[in-house]
Amino acid sequence: MPDYNKKLDDEFKTILIDAIQRNDIDAFREEFLEVHPYDQARFYVSQEQDVRQQISSYLSPSEMAELFHNLDSEDQESTLEEMEPAYVADMLAQMYADDAVDVLNELEKDQVVSYLTIMDDEAAQEIKDLLHYEEKTAGSIMTTEFVAILANHTIKNAMKILKSEAPDAETIYYIYVVDDEERLVGVISLRDLIIADDDKLISEVMNDRVVSVSVSEDQEHVARMMKDYDFLAVPVLDFQRHLLGIITVDDILDVMEEEASEDYSKLAGVPNFESQDHSAFSAARKRLPWLIILLFLGMFTASLIGRFEEILSQVSILAVFIPLIAGMAGNTGTQALAVAVRGIAIGDGDRKSKMQMLRKEIGTGLIIGFVCGILVMIVVDLWKHNIVLGMLVGVAIFTTLTISTMSGALIPLLMHKLKIDPAVASGPFITTLNDIISVLIYFGLATLLMNYLV
Amino acid sequence: MPDYNKKLDDEFKTILIDAIQRNDIDAFREEFLEVHPYDQARFYVSQEQDVRQQISSYLSPSEMAELFHNLDSEDQESTLEEMEPAYVADMLAQMYADDAVDVLNELEKDQVVSYLTIMDDEAAQEIKDLLHYEEKTAGSIMTTEFVAILANHTIKNAMKILKSEAPDAETIYYIYVVDDEERLVGVISLRDLIIADDDKLISEVMNDRVVSVSVSEDQEHVARMMKDYDFLAVPVLDFQRHLLGIITVDDILDVMEEEASEDYSKLAGVPNFESQDHSAFSAARKRLPWLIILLFLGMFTASLIGRFEEILSQVSILAVFIPLIAGMAGNTGTQALAVAVRGIAIGDGDRKSKMQMLRKEIGTGLIIGFVCGILVMIVVDLWKHNIVLGMLVGVAIFTTLTISTMSGALIPLLMHKLKIDPAVASGPFITTLNDIISVLIYFGLATLLMNYLV
Repeated sequence: MPDYNKKLDDEFKTILIDAIQRNDIDAFREEFLEVHPYDQARFYVSQEQDVRQQISSYLSPSEMAELFHNLDSEDQESTLEEMEPAYVADMLAQMYADDAVDVLNELEKDQVVSYLTIMDDEAAQEIKDLLHYEEKTAGSIMTTEFVAILANHTIKNAMKILKSEAPDAETIYYIYVVDDEERLVGVISLRDLIIADDDKLISEVMNDRVVSVSVSEDQEHVARMMKDYDFLAVPVLDFQRHLLGIITVDDILDVMEEEASEDYSKLAGVPNFESQDHSAFSAARKRLPWLIILLFLGMFTASLIGRFEEILSQVSILAVFIPLIAGMAGNTGTQALAVAVRGIAIGDGDRKSKMQMLRKEIGTGLIIGFVCGILVMIVVDLWKHNIVLGMLVGVAIFTTLTISTMSGALIPLLMHKLKIDPAVASGPFITTLNDIISVLIYFGLATLLMNYLV
Repeated sequence: MPDYNKKLDDEFKTILIDAIQRNDIDAFREEFLEVHPYDQARFYVSQEQDVRQQISSYLSPSEMAELFHNLDSEDQESTLEEMEPAYVADMLAQMYADDAVDVLNELEKDQVVSYLTIMDDEAAQEIKDLLHYEEKTAGSIMTTEFVAILANHTIKNAMKILKSEAPDAETIYYIYVVDDEERLVGVISLRDLIIADDDKLISEVMNDRVVSVSVSEDQEHVARMMKDYDFLAVPVLDFQRHLLGIITVDDILDVMEEEASEDYSKLAGVPNFESQDHSAFSAARKRLPWLIILLFLGMFTASLIGRFEEILSQVSILAVFIPLIAGMAGNTGTQALAVAVRGIAIGDGDRKSKMQMLRKEIGTGLIIGFVCGILVMIVVDLWKHNIVLGMLVGVAIFTTLTISTMSGALIPLLMHKLKIDPAVASGPFITTLNDIISVLIYFGLATLLMNYLV
């Protein structure tokens, strides 16, 4: 974890380590609970197992819960192994339900069941309810700890309710207004609540045009929406508009990082970003499957070229331009792919704009192909004093770049339309596909021009 | 812009268009001001210029400011052209200073000066102060509209101050505590303020270990920090710890999107993501410079292969494996690049872990190279019944993948260390570099084994 405030940190560490060595619980707690749980977590992970266990014995399950939430998922796992199951169950019950669910989603099923069995019933039920929702939907990232009131309360009354619920709610900066059947009818921000007259009714000051998301909504969509609307939290509803939970902006920051990381890794052909402490062996094991698939696709390309060995042995100069043509096809294809994937993420579900996008990419491919083709033709002619060769390479570049730009854009668009996750449309896959196309075009043209080349 | 709530939307549109046609200002305002400014903006951009001008005439500069903030930068630009300069100046003055600065940063310098000249002095000064800060630093994204109080106030008093400042402040959910010289000494959240006893002093309940950022801090670092700490806002200080401004989480969502987009486009070799309404011509113009550089690098690779034409004409089968070797080098290099760039973003400034990262990548490269090398050797031998050729291609793959993995990781790490923006370390650049390396290795080895190949 990065260091944000190094100087403060060293002083803090010295005091804490001293307190731990003297086993002075009060001194430790006084210093430790002063800082942000994220800093507590950083200190915690920097210690050896025995010290970590000592620290957790100094803290109540609810104090430990806050620290625990700030650990990496790997550190969370090892910490759980060091703790008594009863303590873990208590601690999970003290976390916000959505955060507890995040932790449990990383564990084996029987482990989850055993923790939930010893947990107090109310907390266990809340967590079980959330565990139902499909991963990456609004339901899976929402929390059930929100403040909801009826519309006929006065402002003064609402403030009282708020004060009493504040310690448990994940955010108190929006208060949701529901009817008798828990259907969402309005929202009021704490800001508006504070400014309003004490005696007014909630129904008079609330906003009744609430922007909400459905529980099955994709998390990426929720993130985009919160970014567009500058919300700190958004309510999650079922199909009858019952208020099920809320999603807070801190979770959205995590979603955005996760989604960006995913898009990025797809483009690079890395299945998952290994955390830094992973070994070279496990990193290789993650990357190899992809590479081996690409290797066999590459062998396929090789076998295609093999069919043109006859021509190659007669006009060996042809081989010289293979990497240039394949490489340029890969580059333009990746550019188009990136633009299309990004466009899908932003244009989300707008069909007309997808056709526009495709038409634009075809145009772009034609222009790029034309410019690069002419350039290559001139350079090759100047270099090899062979206009036929120049034209061959030039036309190959023109055709290849046009097609690879088009396919780079078309494939993710098609996948999105067929509702297939465009995971296979990763950068290296498109690149290898374009290798194959470019080789076929190049040698196809060479075969046609054979008589003029020899 | 995506549609979040289609049904609500259509009804809303019908009422508004009707009101505009009847020129019924009251009916329009009653409906329009009910919805979120983001929805107002969506309606606004969907209309023709004359209707847009009618709408802005119905709204006060401060109402228009909220709508305007939710427009794309392109729509902002065209909207500004349609408005009277005096109205624009008023509107900018009504925006949060950081948002106004974002708008002005997109304009020509003389335009900025002309708006600032007719703006009221206080607002103009605030904006001018912010315009000083370098782009992408904390200073450039902070706002100066925060709530600050002295530590010797009571809670009750603080609430009063808060109520009076609430309408202007960008967030009231953190109250910053300063000394007589405006140095930051503590912070208290509105949540804690609400729970605390009325008669207590701020100094008793505030948190005096405030996590803050320096005004020159990189915006990416600020984003990571807010994500780690789950903050809704973070204070920005100068080197004497004077409180200059705050950065709110809604701006951080924008920063995260911007930075993710940037990393992504670098990997793909696209300088900037064109917005959808750009023409094919302007898209091509943006991508071509990169492609032309890569084209000449590709010609260089071609000229390298040209030096081996002698061997190629004797052993034409060698050409068959060029795309395989170059392609695999590109793929592994891109993987390593992506992991390194991501690692730098996360490990930020932790030197030891960079050495670890590099050592791990070398190990990963060796393992990947070994596995793929052996595989290729077997396949080539089975296919061509030529063990020397199999060994040649296998060893070339092994060496190439090891080196390209290493260079993929080393180059961005080196650039980061030299504080060069790793923009040139984009995917296609690394790929083309690895093309060159792989061709040299392959033909170098072929030259050595020449006698056994013919």
